[in-house]
Amino acid sequence: MSTSEDKSFHNRKVLRSVAGSSPASETDQLAVEEPLEIRVDTRPVSVTMRTPGHDQELALGFLFSEGLIHSASDVLKVAARPDEVANGIDVFLNVTLDFARLTRHVFASSSCGICGKATIEAVHQHFSAVQSQMHIAAETLLALPGKLRQAQETFNRTGGLHAAALFDEAGKLLLVREDIDRIMSADKILGHGLLHNSLPFEKHILLVSGRASFEIIQKALSGQLPIVAAVSAPSSLAVEFAEASNQTLVGFLRGERMNIYAGHQRIKFSGS
Amino acid sequence: MSTSEDKSFHNRKVLRSVAGSSPASETDQLAVEEPLEIRVDTRPVSVTMRTPGHDQELALGFLFSEGLIHSASDVLKVAARPDEVANGIDVFLNVTLDFARLTRHVFASSSCGICGKATIEAVHQHFSAVQSQMHIAAETLLALPGKLRQAQETFNRTGGLHAAALFDEAGKLLLVREDIDRIMSADKILGHGLLHNSLPFEKHILLVSGRASFEIIQKALSGQLPIVAAVSAPSSLAVEFAEASNQTLVGFLRGERMNIYAGHQRIKFSGS
Repeated sequence: MSTSEDKSFHNRKVLRSVAGSSPASETDQLAVEEPLEIRVDTRPVSVTMRTPGHDQELALGFLFSEGLIHSASDVLKVAARPDEVANGIDVFLNVTLDFARLTRHVFASSSCGICGKATIEAVHQHFSAVQSQMHIAAETLLALPGKLRQAQETFNRTGGLHAAALFDEAGKLLLVREDIDRIMSADKILGHGLLHNSLPFEKHILLVSGRASFEIIQKALSGQLPIVAAVSAPSSLAVEFAEASNQTLVGFLRGERMNIYAGHQRIKFSGS
Repeated sequence: MSTSEDKSFHNRKVLRSVAGSSPASETDQLAVEEPLEIRVDTRPVSVTMRTPGHDQELALGFLFSEGLIHSASDVLKVAARPDEVANGIDVFLNVTLDFARLTRHVFASSSCGICGKATIEAVHQHFSAVQSQMHIAAETLLALPGKLRQAQETFNRTGGLHAAALFDEAGKLLLVREDIDRIMSADKILGHGLLHNSLPFEKHILLVSGRASFEIIQKALSGQLPIVAAVSAPSSLAVEFAEASNQTLVGFLRGERMNIYAGHQRIKFSGS
């Protein structure tokens, strides 16, 4: 539900034209995009575009999924900047970070051999493959996009936000996070887990509203998520990474259909 | 058309299930995602995920749209790595770069005041506002997404690629570039312009297949594109940036409809 405190949307006058006719002025809602600066021990480590809201989750999820912190006990404090910099978040740690590694897309942008295989190996030095034996019925999976859509409709009227959603093994929706950047929505889910001591997500499903790239599957592995489902297509490297990490990857999960790209043993079909 | 030399797709076995029934094995085509390392004068300056193909355009478009080079005459040579690193591209310049500025998302990730307004001002120190007086009929705009779709259908069967397309003022499709990353597809268009001395694109339209973020509009400004149209929603910062840069921004361009968010004076309607 939208409230006066909702910073995710701006109202704005827009000219709307149908079939090339003279446009009429109407009010539209835009998804907000603003930079966020993450500081660790008052040192700036990342500036990235995001949709405001859940900034603490975003900051912690980013540090966790990039392998820079490992549990809630690494964090002394996370808070908005005390000096009222609106788009700044402060994280104080009781571990020492390698600041040289602290750029966004740590795995994607580190010079690790410059091929997909080497990139996968670099990630596996930080995060081990999934062990979870969880199962889910295909019918349960098919119902997830509808649940996400229903949850989004209550507060998303712009069409401009990506969503990531966390479900339990019974298909119950536990958490939805939205952002103009698909990776940020996944980081917010992981940060929520860190803040609430609910990691690892060993019996959970991550559903993303769009495509599944390498980075989405890598973030999911940091939370030990055994199943990632996407409403749209996965990339080649997402599939290779999921296979190498013992993750289940489902794509084109829409209507009555799904494609299983990796880890099919976790999905139970009505005929089997 | 797919050929044996097409590196954009991988064929892969996938299990396809309908209505929860036992899955059948079929062949699917995946959009390829691989890292690309860009080196300038043999020094690595960026590693980013992209879909292989048009790597030279991508490298030059990246350097140009981030304000690091300004014309084709700045470039001595651009070529695949001679040492057969498959995902490496070498650029040799006859200008000196500020290597400290050379990270991906230069404007988005530089510490420039940490708000949208300051980000816009930082870009405008490098790229001036659009001067173009070009006009386009609303009917011409409405036809563009169909032309892009038709062009994509001949070579895109994965559903996994973003597209950016360049049109002239008569609505003629000049160039399509696809990538798993929407920003990369725009960089490839700009790099093509640099390689073929067709910049600035002062009487052109850039159409993107998805949403319009700040970064897309910023890249368009680097090429002096007066009109940017998106099939889906723009972000708040995209609209603010387009307004401040005297660009026309159209969103939700689909079917018979369009929303005009900025610069409506460049669009002529049948009733006006």
